[in-house]
Amino acid sequence: MIDQASIALVRLALAEDLAGYGDITSQWTVPADLAGRGVITAREELVVCGLPLAAAVMAEVDSRAVFTLLVGDGASVAAGERLAVIEGPARGLLSAERTMLNFLIHLCGVATQSRRFYRAVEGTGVTVVDTRKTIPGLRAWQKRAVVYGGCGNHRFGLFDMVLVKNNHLEAAGGVRAAMDRVKAAGARYVKVEVEVESEADLREAVACGADVIMLDNQDLESLRGMVSIARALRPGLLLEASGRVSLSSVRAVAETGVDLISTSALTMGAPPVDLSLTLTVGS
Amino acid sequence: MIDQASIALVRLALAEDLAGYGDITSQWTVPADLAGRGVITAREELVVCGLPLAAAVMAEVDSRAVFTLLVGDGASVAAGERLAVIEGPARGLLSAERTMLNFLIHLCGVATQSRRFYRAVEGTGVTVVDTRKTIPGLRAWQKRAVVYGGCGNHRFGLFDMVLVKNNHLEAAGGVRAAMDRVKAAGARYVKVEVEVESEADLREAVACGADVIMLDNQDLESLRGMVSIARALRPGLLLEASGRVSLSSVRAVAETGVDLISTSALTMGAPPVDLSLTLTVGS
Amino acid sequence: MIDQASIALVRLALAEDLAGYGDITSQWTVPADLAGRGVITAREELVVCGLPLAAAVMAEVDSRAVFTLLVGDGASVAAGERLAVIEGPARGLLSAERTMLNFLIHLCGVATQSRRFYRAVEGTGVTVVDTRKTIPGLRAWQKRAVVYGGCGNHRFGLFDMVLVKNNHLEAAGGVRAAMDRVKAAGARYVKVEVEVESEADLREAVACGADVIMLDNQDLESLRGMVSIARALRPGLLLEASGRVSLSSVRAVAETGVDLISTSALTMGAPPVDLSLTLTVGS
Amino acid sequence: MIDQASIALVRLALAEDLAGYGDITSQWTVPADLAGRGVITAREELVVCGLPLAAAVMAEVDSRAVFTLLVGDGASVAAGERLAVIEGPARGLLSAERTMLNFLIHLCGVATQSRRFYRAVEGTGVTVVDTRKTIPGLRAWQKRAVVYGGCGNHRFGLFDMVLVKNNHLEAAGGVRAAMDRVKAAGARYVKVEVEVESEADLREAVACGADVIMLDNQDLESLRGMVSIARALRPGLLLEASGRVSLSSVRAVAETGVDLISTSALTMGAPPVDLSLTLTVGS
Amino acid sequence: MIDQASIALVRLALAEDLAGYGDITSQWTVPADLAGRGVITAREELVVCGLPLAAAVMAEVDSRAVFTLLVGDGASVAAGERLAVIEGPARGLLSAERTMLNFLIHLCGVATQSRRFYRAVEGTGVTVVDTRKTIPGLRAWQKRAVVYGGCGNHRFGLFDMVLVKNNHLEAAGGVRAAMDRVKAAGARYVKVEVEVESEADLREAVACGADVIMLDNQDLESLRGMVSIARALRPGLLLEASGRVSLSSVRAVAETGVDLISTSALTMGAPPVDLSLTLTVGS
Amino acid sequence: MIDQASIALVRLALAEDLAGYGDITSQWTVPADLAGRGVITAREELVVCGLPLAAAVMAEVDSRAVFTLLVGDGASVAAGERLAVIEGPARGLLSAERTMLNFLIHLCGVATQSRRFYRAVEGTGVTVVDTRKTIPGLRAWQKRAVVYGGCGNHRFGLFDMVLVKNNHLEAAGGVRAAMDRVKAAGARYVKVEVEVESEADLREAVACGADVIMLDNQDLESLRGMVSIARALRPGLLLEASGRVSLSSVRAVAETGVDLISTSALTMGAPPVDLSLTLTVGS
Repeated sequence: MIDQASIALVRLALAEDLAGYGDITSQWTVPADLAGRGVITAREELVVCGLPLAAAVMAEVDSRAVFTLLVGDGASVAAGERLAVIEGPARGLLSAERTMLNFLIHLCGVATQSRRFYRAVEGTGVTVVDTRKTIPGLRAWQKRAVVYGGCGNHRFGLFDMVLVKNNHLEAAGGVRAAMDRVKAAGARYVKVEVEVESEADLREAVACGADVIMLDNQDLESLRGMVSIARALRPGLLLEASGRVSLSSVRAVAETGVDLISTSALTMGAPPVDLSLTLTVGS
Repeated sequence: MIDQASIALVRLALAEDLAGYGDITSQWTVPADLAGRGVITAREELVVCGLPLAAAVMAEVDSRAVFTLLVGDGASVAAGERLAVIEGPARGLLSAERTMLNFLIHLCGVATQSRRFYRAVEGTGVTVVDTRKTIPGLRAWQKRAVVYGGCGNHRFGLFDMVLVKNNHLEAAGGVRAAMDRVKAAGARYVKVEVEVESEADLREAVACGADVIMLDNQDLESLRGMVSIARALRPGLLLEASGRVSLSSVRAVAETGVDLISTSALTMGAPPVDLSLTLTVGS
Repeated sequence: MIDQASIALVRLALAEDLAGYGDITSQWTVPADLAGRGVITAREELVVCGLPLAAAVMAEVDSRAVFTLLVGDGASVAAGERLAVIEGPARGLLSAERTMLNFLIHLCGVATQSRRFYRAVEGTGVTVVDTRKTIPGLRAWQKRAVVYGGCGNHRFGLFDMVLVKNNHLEAAGGVRAAMDRVKAAGARYVKVEVEVESEADLREAVACGADVIMLDNQDLESLRGMVSIARALRPGLLLEASGRVSLSSVRAVAETGVDLISTSALTMGAPPVDLSLTLTVGS
Repeated sequence: MIDQASIALVRLALAEDLAGYGDITSQWTVPADLAGRGVITAREELVVCGLPLAAAVMAEVDSRAVFTLLVGDGASVAAGERLAVIEGPARGLLSAERTMLNFLIHLCGVATQSRRFYRAVEGTGVTVVDTRKTIPGLRAWQKRAVVYGGCGNHRFGLFDMVLVKNNHLEAAGGVRAAMDRVKAAGARYVKVEVEVESEADLREAVACGADVIMLDNQDLESLRGMVSIARALRPGLLLEASGRVSLSSVRAVAETGVDLISTSALTMGAPPVDLSLTLTVGS
Repeated sequence: MIDQASIALVRLALAEDLAGYGDITSQWTVPADLAGRGVITAREELVVCGLPLAAAVMAEVDSRAVFTLLVGDGASVAAGERLAVIEGPARGLLSAERTMLNFLIHLCGVATQSRRFYRAVEGTGVTVVDTRKTIPGLRAWQKRAVVYGGCGNHRFGLFDMVLVKNNHLEAAGGVRAAMDRVKAAGARYVKVEVEVESEADLREAVACGADVIMLDNQDLESLRGMVSIARALRPGLLLEASGRVSLSSVRAVAETGVDLISTSALTMGAPPVDLSLTLTVGS
Repeated sequence: MIDQASIALVRLALAEDLAGYGDITSQWTVPADLAGRGVITAREELVVCGLPLAAAVMAEVDSRAVFTLLVGDGASVAAGERLAVIEGPARGLLSAERTMLNFLIHLCGVATQSRRFYRAVEGTGVTVVDTRKTIPGLRAWQKRAVVYGGCGNHRFGLFDMVLVKNNHLEAAGGVRAAMDRVKAAGARYVKVEVEVESEADLREAVACGADVIMLDNQDLESLRGMVSIARALRPGLLLEASGRVSLSSVRAVAETGVDLISTSALTMGAPPVDLSLTLTVGS
């Protein structure tokens, strides 16, 4: 069960590796009828994401190969634990190997990084969420990895939520004017988040019915102040802190009382995990 | 001048951000006729890569916008230096902003990381080269970034070179058998690289006419030994070290006398650069 | 300024008409260098939608043709009023004619139908909105037509809002269980609408924090009852009536006090408008 | 058995509904392993068209679902009769439901409308045929629906027949000049239809060897006159009446003695049928 | 002015040549700013076809290049005559050269071969036409080339004409049964051709109203006999001879009195023409 | 086992034949449930290539058909020998027949032509190789056919080898300048071939480390002279003759002592083979 967009992504990735004469090394050195067996093993503790993509890569390259999952996406595995076993023609395994690994080491990397952030705020009741800072082409899968890691998803793109930032406020002529425009445009079925930088803007955003307040690039003291004002204005209001949050600073931000912390550190520059695909041929 | 594959990549990236009703925030808060101006500025020292993609993103979103390059891909810029200025309808700039930045912070990241490796081996005569460990969909651009950073490119994919690794040797039945198969298959127009782990394999690979020798995951002493044997066997032979090389260890590897060092650290997990797109609306 | 998805739609439509040898009649009877002029005229009072698509059709068929808009999408025009003038090679105009008109008569039909519903509830403060019952492939443009007609848009698809219907309630085990699952899944950035059929469900949905309540297929009396209960529970709650609403019944529904009325009558089965493209050749 | 173009249409339709995070309501409220069962039932008397598309939609969304046809396309069913039963994961059924219905209610609408026209001329020996006025993207399926309804197909597009209309006559310089051009161009393998407005044109078209004569927008008396002249000129000649024919006027036109009546009323603005998909979950 | 399908064909062709790192030779040896000039010259007498494709190839590779036509498709040129001049960046010309020539030498080959057949039957009143035996992907352009050469087009594909061959006759149960099925299916707008092998079948096909008769693989005497019978049955009937016709035998077939001779020799195995693209760089 | 690019080629080919109403003849004359059986037979001695494409065509048209290979690609078959048997619905077989044959007669033609060249040089130790002069869209399959015929492959496209021709030499400023540029660009992983026209260039190319030397359009005496010089300079150097080689002249060229002879005669203008698909319906 993998969607069409993921199949297209798999084909895009394989096309990079298999133009022209294809995998000439395997065609020329490996007998066509030789069987192979591959084992994907974690070399460090990690959170799994991307196995359906790896299986789809294998199926595209040689549909006769059998890809057996030993764990599912979302599993936490220890160093040395096996994720999957693949059995099929050795040539196909060799041709698919790198593309399968490229997906896995990157996406497990995002999931594992998200798990680190999840643990850093554990117990505070705060959720760390992703942003739209993602690798072009991989947004859907990076955002799945974030959830497997225990963090949450902010909006997917520009289309599923209103997020009024400074430029929009400037263009519209302030918070009230922007919110009036949004209401006039008929935004009844989407939530509206407003970025505020001052207490005055915060009060106005709440008065105009904002569903979420974004507090961008503020220091801890300022965050605490905004939180207490906001809580007094409307108890259930969602408060999101954003901007230059790191693994070492995220807990302090969480302890200011906000509900959500958004950070691109989950998806951009997440270190790839150490993962191996050990092939045995000719058995 | 941007190729069709890059246009397709740009459209894939924009489709992630602009499904359904599109950029509802900008449509609803920014007047249709409001002009905007964006300035892309480096916030740290970096090597530029990806400006043609950013320009193509802008053109896809609103072809009326004018994207002016202040530097070209490959330029080294200091913190505070401006890379490009964009002028056009404010709505379009806001809708294109994130996708432009996602390309730039990632690709400048790869170029800047490659520059670090380039500097680390400067003066040794060694070239650090990339691998096929790349982010799916971004291989062509990551490999351009590597060159802008001062490093070199290994093969693009499985199709433009023969690289006989352990699994192929095992499948074929040893170095000589593999090389015989390659010759029988008629590989006259591509280079042949062989991964060797022992002195015996090295001697056999050279005897069989390998063009490049890969020395994978060997310690410095072992590398030095292999180099001296190889130099004695055939003076012009290309020797490539690979496997778990880091910025701090790369110079020592370079000083073993190899010609090339391949590492995925150029493309996988390269930290994104700090870059801003400052928008002014309504001028 | 037309997006890539619309260009793809235009090409799909033209491919239906121009396979094989293409427009053989025009190729064979009309001299290649003969000029033509086409005038698109409303034959009845209507609301305009689809002119950018018609212009894109013309440009795909013959980029030398000049398509001049006399009104824009969203304009209300009287019978006899001209919408656009096209000048270019006669062959191209003849080949593009039917596809241009197929888009226009359908989309102006949807816009004009929406205008009728808009007028039917004028003064009540209620907004009539569309649904996901749309013609496959035309959803984005049908929803634009709805707005030009003066009505509003419900969610675009399954992805930009939570709408918990009876089947979901049944699957989850009731309103509270469903809402608990939604919260657990982390739905912080999308609105949640719940379909209720009883006063008990209404009270529970409001208690669980639903943003919008859907009252489906209820008679006027029942609607009025639900409205008064809901208003007492939470003043700003959005109430949407749906189900088998017609032009003749919509005002009575609007007068029950709901905020929104959703109906597929805006998009499905909207009568095509009467519109002509008069061609003059050889001038 | 469904062709590639139909698969592409199905994917286009699903892409409208399943962007971003996909069907968030079902993902969040329906357990992944819950089974579902859907029954498609006619709520009025109708002619069936589109079941293969609905089955393809279901297969794209979740290939594990089993779609069982109880009738085939072309069947006439009474109100209350079941068309198909679908069994599979409840989430998949819910995600596919709307797209399946959008195809069915529109295409059954076209087939049922065609059946009305078929009945209106029953016994006259006349065939009512469609035109190229179709919904962009749906031409092939609308034209199938027309045949299921009992009517006939005119040419598919501009490529499979010559149809010389007024503009072509004007461009070429009259009927004889146009027919000479057609012959000179070598039209030996396609039929040639000519639109005539006067007796003189009719005589000339017949003399030049037209295969079909189109009588456009003429009143009944004029049609009868043309028919008797044409029958005298060449017995087997095909005569087609077109232009502003409705269900109430079509029989009178048929009784003028023409062979064919073409009308866009079969495909444009055909009322959607009333059809339900009743889902049961968790059995 | 080139259609979308041709652009797609051009991109397919370029993708074969420009995968991976692209045209590495030109990138590495030719300065980026060096200008170039190419002249396409016939090295033998030929009929031109494919220049718009060549121009589109050049535009895809480098849109700054200027492609100037000196003759148009359909022109007859002598050995030594120039067809086009291209001026632009030398790198782009070098990268586009082979793909431009591959289109031209093949399509001019088909046009020139068609011209030979045209000349072979000149004066007999017979038209030589193509078949559906074409190179996959090039049908539309091969059929254009046929017309430029002076021959005619048979049907484009399976969709724009009925051609009842032996297998269909066998499946339907003879000529009358097949024709009855065709009529019942409502084939009013397409011509019907029937392949006959005996006088009896010929008489029946004419009696059933066939528009064209195909006489397949018959010797000259048999052809002459069939022609005289057919002429007696219905004067204007179109008679087509087919099967294993060569340049040396075609005139004898033409002199049997048939109207049309179809042969795959126009498109399959037509010898490529001798054509050069002379590049000058650095001027 | 067929790759995605081949599936795309198959669909492109079928789209040419099955637009609009599809295969109207078979739909109208052949009962839907009639079974058919097709046998593909060689009518002359030939080398087989393209059976996987033919099987993919059949599967696209009707996946219920069973395509049984009696020989594989690469087999040499005598006149009268059967290649494959297809069993399935008669309609599907008839609709797929022509497209299957178009692939086979062309690709077997290339393979058989290559076999002729292979035989012409047998015993000389020389390999005849293909060029980039291929039919647009068919390069991968033509190059497979070449290998089945016993000849070899030159580079696939512009991307997998450096081939410095006269224009590049002129642009760079001579052999040494060109080779310096290639080395500076870092061409370590691809082979470098240089076209030489004079002894001086030959000496310089060898001195600069060229891997292969192309001797273009030289007479036999000149070739022999170049070969003896080159052999003296560097024993293992690969020497390739190219330019206007025919079946009758190729052996003489081979006997000059070169290693490789490249010629477009393998792929361009290779005569199609004589092959039949005999259908039996209704059994």
